[in-house]
Amino acid sequence: MALKTKAEYIESLQALKPIAYMFGKRVENVVDNPRIRSGIEATAATYEVAEMPQYRDLIVTTSPLINEPVNRFTLPPSSIEDLVARVKVNRGLGRYVGTCHQRCTGLDCLSALSIVTYDVDKRYGTSYYDRFTEFLKHVQRNDIAANAGVTDVKGDRSLAPHDQPDKDMYLRIVEKKEDGIVVRGAKVHQTGSLSCHEIIVIPTRALGKGDEDYAVSFAIPADVKGLIHVIGRSTLDMRELEGCDMGNTLYSKYCPTLIFDDVFIPWERVFLCGEVEFAGDLVSRFSAFHRQSHGGCKSGKIDCMIGASMTMMDYNGTSTAGHHKQKIIDMIHRAETLYGCCLAASYEGRRQPSGTYFIDTVLANASKLHEGKELAEAIRLMVDISGGFVADLPSDRDFENPEVGKLLKKYMKGVDSVPVENRVKMYRLIEKMALESADTISDIHGGGSPEAHRVTIFRETDIESKKRAAKRLAGIDK
Amino acid sequence: MALKTKAEYIESLQALKPIAYMFGKRVENVVDNPRIRSGIEATAATYEVAEMPQYRDLIVTTSPLINEPVNRFTLPPSSIEDLVARVKVNRGLGRYVGTCHQRCTGLDCLSALSIVTYDVDKRYGTSYYDRFTEFLKHVQRNDIAANAGVTDVKGDRSLAPHDQPDKDMYLRIVEKKEDGIVVRGAKVHQTGSLSCHEIIVIPTRALGKGDEDYAVSFAIPADVKGLIHVIGRSTLDMRELEGCDMGNTLYSKYCPTLIFDDVFIPWERVFLCGEVEFAGDLVSRFSAFHRQSHGGCKSGKIDCMIGASMTMMDYNGTSTAGHHKQKIIDMIHRAETLYGCCLAASYEGRRQPSGTYFIDTVLANASKLHEGKELAEAIRLMVDISGGFVADLPSDRDFENPEVGKLLKKYMKGVDSVPVENRVKMYRLIEKMALESADTISDIHGGGSPEAHRVTIFRETDIESKKRAAKRLAGIDK
Amino acid sequence: MALKTKAEYIESLQALKPIAYMFGKRVENVVDNPRIRSGIEATAATYEVAEMPQYRDLIVTTSPLINEPVNRFTLPPSSIEDLVARVKVNRGLGRYVGTCHQRCTGLDCLSALSIVTYDVDKRYGTSYYDRFTEFLKHVQRNDIAANAGVTDVKGDRSLAPHDQPDKDMYLRIVEKKEDGIVVRGAKVHQTGSLSCHEIIVIPTRALGKGDEDYAVSFAIPADVKGLIHVIGRSTLDMRELEGCDMGNTLYSKYCPTLIFDDVFIPWERVFLCGEVEFAGDLVSRFSAFHRQSHGGCKSGKIDCMIGASMTMMDYNGTSTAGHHKQKIIDMIHRAETLYGCCLAASYEGRRQPSGTYFIDTVLANASKLHEGKELAEAIRLMVDISGGFVADLPSDRDFENPEVGKLLKKYMKGVDSVPVENRVKMYRLIEKMALESADTISDIHGGGSPEAHRVTIFRETDIESKKRAAKRLAGIDK
Amino acid sequence: MALKTKAEYIESLQALKPIAYMFGKRVENVVDNPRIRSGIEATAATYEVAEMPQYRDLIVTTSPLINEPVNRFTLPPSSIEDLVARVKVNRGLGRYVGTCHQRCTGLDCLSALSIVTYDVDKRYGTSYYDRFTEFLKHVQRNDIAANAGVTDVKGDRSLAPHDQPDKDMYLRIVEKKEDGIVVRGAKVHQTGSLSCHEIIVIPTRALGKGDEDYAVSFAIPADVKGLIHVIGRSTLDMRELEGCDMGNTLYSKYCPTLIFDDVFIPWERVFLCGEVEFAGDLVSRFSAFHRQSHGGCKSGKIDCMIGASMTMMDYNGTSTAGHHKQKIIDMIHRAETLYGCCLAASYEGRRQPSGTYFIDTVLANASKLHEGKELAEAIRLMVDISGGFVADLPSDRDFENPEVGKLLKKYMKGVDSVPVENRVKMYRLIEKMALESADTISDIHGGGSPEAHRVTIFRETDIESKKRAAKRLAGIDK
Repeated sequence: MALKTKAEYIESLQALKPIAYMFGKRVENVVDNPRIRSGIEATAATYEVAEMPQYRDLIVTTSPLINEPVNRFTLPPSSIEDLVARVKVNRGLGRYVGTCHQRCTGLDCLSALSIVTYDVDKRYGTSYYDRFTEFLKHVQRNDIAANAGVTDVKGDRSLAPHDQPDKDMYLRIVEKKEDGIVVRGAKVHQTGSLSCHEIIVIPTRALGKGDEDYAVSFAIPADVKGLIHVIGRSTLDMRELEGCDMGNTLYSKYCPTLIFDDVFIPWERVFLCGEVEFAGDLVSRFSAFHRQSHGGCKSGKIDCMIGASMTMMDYNGTSTAGHHKQKIIDMIHRAETLYGCCLAASYEGRRQPSGTYFIDTVLANASKLHEGKELAEAIRLMVDISGGFVADLPSDRDFENPEVGKLLKKYMKGVDSVPVENRVKMYRLIEKMALESADTISDIHGGGSPEAHRVTIFRETDIESKKRAAKRLAGIDK
Repeated sequence: MALKTKAEYIESLQALKPIAYMFGKRVENVVDNPRIRSGIEATAATYEVAEMPQYRDLIVTTSPLINEPVNRFTLPPSSIEDLVARVKVNRGLGRYVGTCHQRCTGLDCLSALSIVTYDVDKRYGTSYYDRFTEFLKHVQRNDIAANAGVTDVKGDRSLAPHDQPDKDMYLRIVEKKEDGIVVRGAKVHQTGSLSCHEIIVIPTRALGKGDEDYAVSFAIPADVKGLIHVIGRSTLDMRELEGCDMGNTLYSKYCPTLIFDDVFIPWERVFLCGEVEFAGDLVSRFSAFHRQSHGGCKSGKIDCMIGASMTMMDYNGTSTAGHHKQKIIDMIHRAETLYGCCLAASYEGRRQPSGTYFIDTVLANASKLHEGKELAEAIRLMVDISGGFVADLPSDRDFENPEVGKLLKKYMKGVDSVPVENRVKMYRLIEKMALESADTISDIHGGGSPEAHRVTIFRETDIESKKRAAKRLAGIDK
Repeated sequence: MALKTKAEYIESLQALKPIAYMFGKRVENVVDNPRIRSGIEATAATYEVAEMPQYRDLIVTTSPLINEPVNRFTLPPSSIEDLVARVKVNRGLGRYVGTCHQRCTGLDCLSALSIVTYDVDKRYGTSYYDRFTEFLKHVQRNDIAANAGVTDVKGDRSLAPHDQPDKDMYLRIVEKKEDGIVVRGAKVHQTGSLSCHEIIVIPTRALGKGDEDYAVSFAIPADVKGLIHVIGRSTLDMRELEGCDMGNTLYSKYCPTLIFDDVFIPWERVFLCGEVEFAGDLVSRFSAFHRQSHGGCKSGKIDCMIGASMTMMDYNGTSTAGHHKQKIIDMIHRAETLYGCCLAASYEGRRQPSGTYFIDTVLANASKLHEGKELAEAIRLMVDISGGFVADLPSDRDFENPEVGKLLKKYMKGVDSVPVENRVKMYRLIEKMALESADTISDIHGGGSPEAHRVTIFRETDIESKKRAAKRLAGIDK
Repeated sequence: MALKTKAEYIESLQALKPIAYMFGKRVENVVDNPRIRSGIEATAATYEVAEMPQYRDLIVTTSPLINEPVNRFTLPPSSIEDLVARVKVNRGLGRYVGTCHQRCTGLDCLSALSIVTYDVDKRYGTSYYDRFTEFLKHVQRNDIAANAGVTDVKGDRSLAPHDQPDKDMYLRIVEKKEDGIVVRGAKVHQTGSLSCHEIIVIPTRALGKGDEDYAVSFAIPADVKGLIHVIGRSTLDMRELEGCDMGNTLYSKYCPTLIFDDVFIPWERVFLCGEVEFAGDLVSRFSAFHRQSHGGCKSGKIDCMIGASMTMMDYNGTSTAGHHKQKIIDMIHRAETLYGCCLAASYEGRRQPSGTYFIDTVLANASKLHEGKELAEAIRLMVDISGGFVADLPSDRDFENPEVGKLLKKYMKGVDSVPVENRVKMYRLIEKMALESADTISDIHGGGSPEAHRVTIFRETDIESKKRAAKRLAGIDK
C-alpha cells in the first residue's frame, strides 16, 4: 500500500534506531524527544493532509511507475501538472505548518537523480537509472520520507575537494568492495534527518579531475551503522524541551549535522560513483528543484506571517492604521512574487530525456533570489506591525505564577474583547516565525547561497540574443 | 482577409484623416510626420512580425469567432494558452522594438468588454454583447489596430465626476439621440492614437449614483468628426523631427491628448450607457489585462537594456569588471520577475461567463508593482554600467562637421576593434531607453498608478484564511 | 566622588533588593544570576571604559553642575561638543560590547527632563526644574545608572489613556498625598532595569484633556516597594543560564516588564504632575535623544558585525570572493549612514532655554529610520557571508562529548591554520548578533516605531519653503 | 575688488571668445545663445546670491590669502567652518536653481591642488604650491568662475594610459618648451565650461610608471587657443532654443566635451608635471571634495522636488492622500541622508599640512553612494505623486494655438482655484527635474562612478580594528 497514515508514519520512525546526539548527550528515543518531535510532526503533516479531503486531490496522485496512488513527495514530476502541483502543495503545507515541513529535499533529490542517472547511463552504459528506479519503487510503495544529504562541510573553501589538507572535508569513497562502497565525510544542515527513513546523498558542487572519489551518490537508511546525527542548536530550541513559550504550538524544525563515519553502501543503492563531470549537473538539478520548493513553502510561510500580523492589528487596536495596511500589502507582494516566479518556472518546464520534467531554472532562481532578500524584509514588516513584545514577552510560566501572573494578565491585555491569552499566544508565534534560526536562515542559505542563484541566472540567460536585439535597434550591423 | 501586411497597415492609416496638432500646429499628414511615423512603425512591427516565420506561430492564431487566422492583437483570450501567448508576444515585441508597440491597449479593452458586456446583458437584458461581437468581427476581419481611451483628465481628484465644477472633466454623454449619443470630454496619455484605426473608450474609474452620464463605453474611428489629437511633448521628441541623434533608429512612442469635442457615436458602437455599477468592473478588467501586457513588453524592453549594457561593456573595455556583471544579473532578475509573475497570472487564469479567460489579478498586479519600482532601477543600472555619455554625447551633426567631426571620432573611440560609430549609436540607444519620457513614465503610471496596484492586491487577497492559519498554529481557537 | 569603578558599580547593585521574576520564579540575587549578570556586565562596561586610558578622555568630563569629573552618562549635554561626544561614546561602546550597554536611556531621560522641567516651570511657576537639578546632582555625585520608564502597555491602541476600559493601561497617579504620589501601571521593554540604580519615568505619548493623571514623571530607586521586574524571554536566554553556546562571551541584554503596583513617590522626585500639554514634548525630546543614541551604538554594533563577517571570510577561505567584499561595503555604508546622520544631528544642535543642547530632530530621525530598515539588512548580509552554521551549529557540549566531540572538531574545521575552536566561537557570536531578540528588535522599535520617526520627520520639515522654491523656478507667482 | 556682481560676471564672460560647437555648428556668441545662457544663469546665481542679504553671510567670507571679502567658491577651506559652509551653500544654491549651478568643480579642484601641490613640493622641492597660490590670488581677486577638467575619454578602459593604441586617450604633455608645455587630449562632461573663465585640469586616475606624460595639472583661460568646446546633446536641449516648454524657467545645465588640440600652457600655470605618484592623490582629493559638494546641491534639488510634488498634490486635489504623504516622507528622508552624511564629513574634517582642511572621505562617499541610488528613487516618487503628464503634456504652443488652446486650458485644469497655467508650469518643472539628462545622469556619474565610491569606502575603513573587536567578544585571543 503506497500511502501511510500519519500514525503509520510515526510508528515507522519508531522502528528506526538512529544514533543521535543533542547538547552533548545521546538521544535514545528521538521520536519522543519533544525537540525532535516537533520537527517530526511537521513532516507528519505531509502524511496527515493526504488523508484530509480538502487537500487529498492536490497531494495524492497515481504513480506511473507503480500504478498506485502515492503521495506527491515520492514522485519525480512527469508532467507540467506535476511541476505546478509541487509549488501548490508546498505553499499549502508551508501555510499549514508555518515552518519547514522537511520533506521536500528528499523529493528534490529523487527528481534530480531521475534525470541525471539516465544521462550518465547514456554516456557510460552504466545501470544507475535501473538501480535508482528500483529504489524509487521502494520509496513510493512504502511512502518513504527521504532526506537529501548535499552540503559538505567544505573545509577551506578556496581549495578543491582533493586539495584539502583533510581529504574528508567533502564526503568521499574511502573503499570499494565487492558488495558496495564505504564512504566518509559529513553533511550539514540536514533538515529533518531524523524525521526521515532514508538519506539520499549527492555531491555538493561541480567536480573536476582528481575529485573522482567525491563523485558519489547513494541512498541509505537513516539509522545505518556509522551514521551519526548531531542536532545543532537553534535559537529557540529550549522552548520545546521546556514545553513552554513555543509559539508554533504544533511544529518546529531542526537541522542535524550528519557524520558518515565509514558507512557501507551496497551497490544497489549507489547512483553515481566516480563520474565527476555529472556531479555539477546533479547538484544543479537538485538545487533548481529545491529553489522551486522554497518558492512554494516560503510564500506559504509569509501567508502565516500576514495572518499573524493582521491578527495582531486586531488584538492591538491598530486595524485602521493606514501605514500598517501598506506594510501588509508589501508582505503580500513578496509572497506572491516568490509564488508567481516559481509557478512560472513550473509551467515553463520541459521534459528531459528520462521522462522527468524539469523547471525553467532562471525563473526558479529569480524566485529564490527574492526569498534570500525579501523574507527578511517580510519578517521585519511583521515585527514592525506587531510591536516590541516580539523581543521580550514574559514567559508562560510567569503568567502562571501565583504572585505575578494575575498582574501580567492585567497588563498584557490589548483590545478588550480579545482574551489576553490569545494576544500572548500570537506574540509567541510571531517570535517563532521571526527569530527561529533553523527556519529563517534557510531563507538565505537553503538551496545554495544567494551568489549561487545569481551565478545560475547569468549562466542560463541568453545574453547574445539580447545584444543582437539592442544592436539592431541602434542600427549596428554586427 | 483577416491579416494585414505591414504595407497594408500603413496604407490603411493613410486613408484616415484625423485632426492632429503638434507643437502648436496642425499636422496634415500624420503618417509621414517623422515624429508620429516612428510610433506608427512600432505598431507596424505587430503586423510585420506576423509575416515573419520565426514569430508567426506565436502571433497568428485562428479566431473561433470568424474562423480565420487573426493577429493575436485582435483576439480576446479564450483559453489559458491565449493568456500565456499574450505575455510571450508582448515580451518578443518589447524586445523587438525596444519601446512601446502601442497595440496592447486596444486588445486589453476588447478583452475587458468581451467579459463585461456579457455580464451587463445578463443583468439588464441589454444587447451590448451582440453589438460588441459585431464590432469585434470587424476588428478581426480587418486586422484593426485599436486604441484604448481610458484616462480622463479628472479635474479635481478629490471630487466625483458629477461633483466637478466643470462637468466635462470625465468624458460623458451630453446628448442621447435616436441614432446614437453625443459625448464630450478628454482622454489623456493616448499612446499611439494616430497609429490606430479605432478608438475604444471606457470609463476611468468606478462610478456611483449621479455619475450615470459618465458610465459610457464605445468604439469610434480615429478620424471621427469632433475628435482632436494633440501630440504631447516628450523629452526626445525633436530627435525624430530633426532626423538625427534618434538612438532607437527604428521606433519611438508618442502619447496624444484626445479631445472629444461633442463626438457622435452611433448606437451600434455603444457598449455601455448609464449602467454605473459596471464602470468599475470594466476599468478594473482592462487594467488587469493591461498590467499583464506590461509584464511582457517591459521585460522585453529590459532585454534590450541588458543587451545594450553588455554591448557597451564590450565597447568600453569593461567586460571583465565583476561589479558590472553583478549589475547585469540585477537587471536580468528584474526582467524575469516581471515576466514570471505575469506568466503565472496567465497560467492561473480562469474562464469567465462570456467564455473569455481572465488572469489572476493578484499576480498580474504583483508584476506591475515591480515594474513601477524596478524599471527605474534597471535603467539606473544600465546608465551606471554605460557611463556618463548617456547625458551629453555630442550630436551626430557634430560628428559630421568638417572642423570638429574628425576630432570627435578620434576621442569618442573605445576599444580599438570597435568602430567609433557603433559606440556612438549604442550610447544614443541607451539615452533613448533611459530618458525618453513617453515610454519610461508608463513604467510607473501605465495601467494605473502604483497605489492602484497596491489597493487591488489587498482587495483581492483572502486575508481571513491567512488569519485562521496563524491562529491554528498559535493554538487560538477562534 | 563622582566616578565609580566597575567594581564599585557591581557592589552598589548588590546593595539593592529588587523584586524580580524570571521564567515563573522569583530571582533572589539578580547580580549573580548569569542571565541578568551578562546584561549588568554590559552596563559595567560604561564604568570600565571610564577607567581605561584610551577611552577616558572621551567618556569623562567635568560637570558644570557639581564641578567634578563625571561619566558622560550622567550629563545632559550643555554644548555641541557634548552632543557629539554622545554619538562617539555610544559608537565606541556599541563596538566594545557588541550589544546594548543599556545606560543610554537614563541619560536620554535626564536630558529631556533638563529641558522640559524648565519650560514647565516657566509656564506654571512650578519648581520641577529645581527638584530635577537636585536629583541630577545625586546622579552625578554617585555615578548613578538610570533607566528610562517610557513605554506603557497601552491596552487598546485606538483609545486614549483615559478612555481605556482598564484605566491602568497607561501608568497613572492613583493617589496624591501630602508627601508624595502613588502611581500604578506598567512600563515594558525596560532594557537593563536591574542594571540600574534608579528608574526615571516619563509619559509614553502626547496627552490631552482628561489625561491629567497620566501626565506624570518621576525618579525612584529600582528596588522601591511595589515595583516588580519580570524578565521577559529572549531568543537565546537559556544560553547564559546553561553557561554554554553564548556567542558574545562577555555581554548580553535583557528587557524586563516593570509593574508599578501602587508605588509611592515622594514629591522631591516628582518632575511632572498633571501638566498634560508637556507630556508630548517630554516624550518627543526623550525619543529624539534616544534615536541619536541609537545612531551611535548601532553603528558600533555593525562594526562588530563587519569584523565578525570578515573574520569568518578568513576562517572559511573566502577572503578573496568579490561578492563578499561588496557585501562588506554595503555593511560599512549602513554603519556610516547611521553614524553620519547622527553626528550631523549633533553638530547642528541648538541651545534650549534651560541651557541644555538639543539635536536636530530631522537628522536624528533620518538616522533612526535607516536603522529600522537597514540593521536587518546588515544582519542578512553578515549571515549571507558567514554561511548556514548560523542556524544550527552543534553545541559546545557536543564538542566536549567524548564520543562525537573529536569528529565534530575534525569536520567543523575551516582554513587549516585557524583552530576549529575559533571558527566555532565566531559562528556563535554571529548567531548572537543576528538572532538575539532583545537587541535586534530594538533596531526596529527602540526609540519608538518607524512610523513615529516618519511622522516626526514630516512634522519638523519646512514644506512651505520648498514649495516656494519650486514655484519660483516654474515661474509661478504665488 | 574681490566680488563680482552678477552683471559684471556676465560682462566678463562676454569678453571671452571661446571656440564652441553645438549641433554641428559653430556658436559665435555663447553668452547670448539661449541653450548655453540658461546654464550661465545658473552659475550667475552664485554671484547673485552673494549680493542678497539673506545669503550674503553664508556665501561671502574673508580670504586669509588676499585679506578681502571673497565668494566662497574661490576659497579652499581653511577651517571646519569653511567645510561646513560648503555643504550649506551648495544646498541653498541647489534649491535656488533646481539644477546644477556648475561652479563647484572649480572650487573642488582648487581645494585639492591647495593640498597636493604642497605635498609634491615637500617631496621634490618643486614650486608648484607657490605657482598655485599666485593663481589662487588671481581667482580670488577677480572672483573667477573655474571649471574642473578631470574626466578623460579613456579609450579602452582595460588599458593604462600609456598602453592605449591612441596615446591621446588621456590628456598628455606632447611637448615641453622653455616657456611652458603643450598638451593634447579631451576632457568630457565639462559641466559649464562656457560659464567659466578658467579651466583647471587634473589627471582622471592614479598613474604609474610609464604614464609620466599624463601626470599633468594646469589652469588656462576657457578661450585659450586650441581649446574647443562641443556642447553635447541633452534630453531637453531644444526647449531653451525653442523658448518654450522649459520647465525650469530660469536655469539649466549643459556639459561640453573639451578638446585640447595642442594647447600651450605657460609654466606659471602648470601645477603638476610628471610626478606620477601624486596623480591618484590629486584626483581622489578632488573627488572627495566633489562628492561632498553633491551632498549639498543634490539635497537642495530634492528640496525643489519635494516642493514641486506637494504643490502638484495641491493642484491635483490629492493633498490628503496618505500614500502620497508617505512618499513625501521618503523624499525628505533621502534629502536629509545626503545632507547629514555630508555635514558629518565636514564637521569631522582635518587640517592637512598645507593648512587646507579635508573632509572625512568615508562619510562623504557614504553620502554620494546614497545619491547614486536614491536620487533616482526620489525622482520616481515625484513622478508617482505628480501623475502621467510628466510624460506627454501638450506644448505651450498648443496652449497658445487659437483652435485647440482654449480646449486644452479647459481640460488641463486641476483644482478649481488654481489657474491652469500654474498646473502646466509645475508639470513642466517636474519633467525638467525628472528627465533632463545633463543633471540627472550626474546623480550617478558625477564625482566618479558608484563603484569608485564603494572602493573608496572600503579602502578608507579600518577593518582590522573591527575584526579585533569581534574576536574579543567571541573570546578569541588573536
